[in-house]
Amino acid sequence: MQLTRFTDVSLRVLMHLARLAPHEQATTQDIAARYNVPYNHLNKAVHHLSKAGWITSSRGRGGGIRLAVAPGELRIGEVVRSTEPPGDVVDCFSQTCPLRFACALKCALDEAHRAFYARLDEYTLADVAGNPGQALLELA
Amino acid sequence: MQLTRFTDVSLRVLMHLARLAPHEQATTQDIAARYNVPYNHLNKAVHHLSKAGWITSSRGRGGGIRLAVAPGELRIGEVVRSTEPPGDVVDCFSQTCPLRFACALKCALDEAHRAFYARLDEYTLADVAGNPGQALLELA
Repeated sequence: MQLTRFTDVSLRVLMHLARLAPHEQATTQDIAARYNVPYNHLNKAVHHLSKAGWITSSRGRGGGIRLAVAPGELRIGEVVRSTEPPGDVVDCFSQTCPLRFACALKCALDEAHRAFYARLDEYTLADVAGNPGQALLELA
Repeated sequence: MQLTRFTDVSLRVLMHLARLAPHEQATTQDIAARYNVPYNHLNKAVHHLSKAGWITSSRGRGGGIRLAVAPGELRIGEVVRSTEPPGDVVDCFSQTCPLRFACALKCALDEAHRAFYARLDEYTLADVAGNPGQALLELA
């Protein structure tokens, strides 16, 4: 069970922005370089996060992106629900499965899916981004 | 969040076998045709399930595959853990992520992952395969 690369990149963008000092901004180019992610992938994630209202951008010299929400108020489950492709955990109806009329598997998988997101909803962006100074302490 | 096609096919094989009458067997060819799955994909799943000890096969004329365990004793979480590729929900260490020393995201995702499997462990193969007669009743 893996999440998409799009989810992975989106979460890293949010975590990076959550660790900036107040009024500090980042550029998409800078994040792409630091996290070793192709610029285009990162740009798509930034566009999605911006459309969702979680980040805001300013153009021109000195422009960049920053969080538009308090990190303590953004639930990780909410982000991951938005970045993962819609659809079932298994794709039951694209094939003519003879079990489909009496199959309780879909129900079990849906429940497990909900349990996954419910657990992620217990964490906010502030919880997962951690303390900005911590990385340096742990490197020392 | 999607499970692999290998998990999907493996679950369908087990569900099909769970719905057979006692002493009845199925052939890999027959299951492949019924579920519209390429024979090679199905054969890999059958090999895996056999190696795990959940199904047994007999060769020759009149041979086939059948369950080697009681459907009420095989937990769906156990099957899915075995068929999904190992590794983390997101692939943190294949890239040199600057957050990796102070990242609580991995911990949140690991917990969510465990919640997903814990919920699937509440279901046995008997629960998800349902009543063999039910499909016909619902089609009537």
